Amino acid sequence: MKNNILEIAKNAKNAFLTTMNLDISVKNEALKKIAKNLEKNKNKIFEANNLDLKEAEILLKNNKINTSTYNRLKLDENKFKDMIKGIYDLIELDDPVNQIIWQKELDSDLILKKISTPIGLIGVIFEARPDCLVQISSLVIKSGNCAILKGGSESINTNKTIFEFIETALNNTEGFEKNVLNLIFSRDDVKKMLEADEYINLIIPRGSNALVKYIKENTKIPVLGHASGICHIFVDESADFENTTKIIIDAKTQYPSACNAVETLLIHKNYPYFDELKKTLKNKEIKLIENPENYSTEYGDKILSVKIVNNIEEAIKHINKYGSGHTDSILSKDDKNIEKFMKYIDSSSVFANCSTRFSDGFRYGFGAEVGISTNKTHARGPVGLEGLTIYKYELFGKNNIVNDYTSGKKTFKHKFI
Amino acid sequence: MKNNILEIAKNAKNAFLTTMNLDISVKNEALKKIAKNLEKNKNKIFEANNLDLKEAEILLKNNKINTSTYNRLKLDENKFKDMIKGIYDLIELDDPVNQIIWQKELDSDLILKKISTPIGLIGVIFEARPDCLVQISSLVIKSGNCAILKGGSESINTNKTIFEFIETALNNTEGFEKNVLNLIFSRDDVKKMLEADEYINLIIPRGSNALVKYIKENTKIPVLGHASGICHIFVDESADFENTTKIIIDAKTQYPSACNAVETLLIHKNYPYFDELKKTLKNKEIKLIENPENYSTEYGDKILSVKIVNNIEEAIKHINKYGSGHTDSILSKDDKNIEKFMKYIDSSSVFANCSTRFSDGFRYGFGAEVGISTNKTHARGPVGLEGLTIYKYELFGKNNIVNDYTSGKKTFKHKFI
Repeated sequence: MKNNILEIAKNAKNAFLTTMNLDISVKNEALKKIAKNLEKNKNKIFEANNLDLKEAEILLKNNKINTSTYNRLKLDENKFKDMIKGIYDLIELDDPVNQIIWQKELDSDLILKKISTPIGLIGVIFEARPDCLVQISSLVIKSGNCAILKGGSESINTNKTIFEFIETALNNTEGFEKNVLNLIFSRDDVKKMLEADEYINLIIPRGSNALVKYIKENTKIPVLGHASGICHIFVDESADFENTTKIIIDAKTQYPSACNAVETLLIHKNYPYFDELKKTLKNKEIKLIENPENYSTEYGDKILSVKIVNNIEEAIKHINKYGSGHTDSILSKDDKNIEKFMKYIDSSSVFANCSTRFSDGFRYGFGAEVGISTNKTHARGPVGLEGLTIYKYELFGKNNIVNDYTSGKKTFKHKFI
Repeated sequence: MKNNILEIAKNAKNAFLTTMNLDISVKNEALKKIAKNLEKNKNKIFEANNLDLKEAEILLKNNKINTSTYNRLKLDENKFKDMIKGIYDLIELDDPVNQIIWQKELDSDLILKKISTPIGLIGVIFEARPDCLVQISSLVIKSGNCAILKGGSESINTNKTIFEFIETALNNTEGFEKNVLNLIFSRDDVKKMLEADEYINLIIPRGSNALVKYIKENTKIPVLGHASGICHIFVDESADFENTTKIIIDAKTQYPSACNAVETLLIHKNYPYFDELKKTLKNKEIKLIENPENYSTEYGDKILSVKIVNNIEEAIKHINKYGSGHTDSILSKDDKNIEKFMKYIDSSSVFANCSTRFSDGFRYGFGAEVGISTNKTHARGPVGLEGLTIYKYELFGKNNIVNDYTSGKKTFKHKFI
């Protein structure tokens, strides 16, 4: 069993050679069967989740996990409903693969097509959130990829049970091979997975910054993930009081531990309502730290770093220096300043006059979210199904040779059709 | 000087904050000035190249480099002309960045735009080919990126001289900061560059498989490169004699050391002209190795592995197993088999009835080529300017907060506009 993970990876890679061309009707049929099978076995899933929760209560008492981990682990009626709805929403989306992106005549008898394709075998490592397993499995199926999945150890019973029902549904869908989805359990397995660069094309870690960092440092496989979410709001001279307060409160308190929550306020020195703003935020139990030692702290709590800046240039410089390239917003009535901010902030999402919390795949209308990427290759910002795709080139000839073109006998047309 | 490379990287990263928004007229002006400055100083460049060639002759005599390295190093009138023409061709291309990819109403007062952007700071390591330095510098400038460049040590004098004239041209172009392009020289510098993941967003190695492999193993930065070019031609039962021969000869002999040259022939067992084909290829001085021990050899010479297969399924299986995902071609008159081949070969370029040698950025009409990628993320196949770009999201609001949508007070429209 020493090479177990390599065997799993090899078999999954073989399965990909069929999933990559599955008809959209087959993929949607599989998703429908998964949704129905999970609904039918809801009680068993909740039972398994209760087992995990009992273990987690002990861990919680001994401070080995925190309340937010416990809450994420806990499945309830609402989460279950959202989980199922997520699958049906995904069914409604168009096939993200095997679409012609463009086609071009290289010559009148030589047609080049750029076709969207799935990537291949994807390794996903996610925290102890049972809904995450369902969401990721559905995304992988819809996009025609294969995956090796590792969930947080605290959710092991829930994951095993959910995975069993997903697997049964796939086995009952004509066209689906075995080995498309694979659940693994130990940290040692993850280590081996990170080494399987011969078979695995992409690693997606969903979890803490520490997890993402560990993974980036321990694999040659491309990693899609975000480093951290140091998001800023710059309050320009011309911003008003009411909207500024409303947006900051939303961006900080609507879900303080989200990566798109604001961490730092930059206030223009001539902003006229700074004192009232501070008072209002304090009333909302937001702690303000003026001139902190470190401007790169992701509080994940109702705390904000605050800095006065002399002008928009200083704000832009500060954000590009201390930010994490995630999401930054300007509040301003000055169109020129808004334009400058949008152009010169080098972040995946740059906003004007709205809350940083909009930075999210569902809110962007992607239907489902793989995660948020602060990478600057492959996929950036909120990543939907598109992040699980790449493309290939298909060239249809009529016995053409290159020598006719290098010799000057023929010339390329390069005409989009 | 210990942190010299880190300093260079930091300064280049700062320069990127201006190059990312340069107007296309400024970038084209810089390219024009570079072309003119190189033309004006042609003699000095040839003098520097002669210095390198003298050193290289000694290396060649002592078998420390081979003839093909020497030939690539040698600049001649034709190469110089092509080099300059390449710059003018690039000027003609549209700006690859700061274009709206799509825009969408999240709500009537909340507009999301997806905008193409340059990536940032790119590290390029290339072989001793002086034309490579010019080509890469031009691509980097046109796409609004910044770069650290390391050329093969044999071309050090030519590179220094060319780089000097590029730099003068940039310094004479209003809008261009210093530090946009940076030339480094030692292997030790490369090692430090590979460690500078805080500043560098992408590494592009252009050279041998060994170089690409070394780089992938020694950096956390994403790498865009191809592993190897094990390209196949599958000769189906229905292929004729004349075109089959013509295409194989083109794919093998037109430039045998190119990565898109064919390495393995798979012949359907019922192909009627196998004996004549073998005879003709041998007459063209192509050595055929039937049933070789290793089907993953990139000969880079006029040698071909040959295997008889029972059917197209066996051919597809062979290619997906032994190929490198670069370029594979089917020669057939059977439309169903062609369709099957195009769908089930998991390579970056899949061809029907034409030479594998068409797999190339210029031939695909990309104007210029960064390289050919067998990666399955970011960019795949021949990579043009697009491979040096990514995107960001700009969201324009009117004081919108997320809580209005999660509370059900408002709903998203998600309408493309």
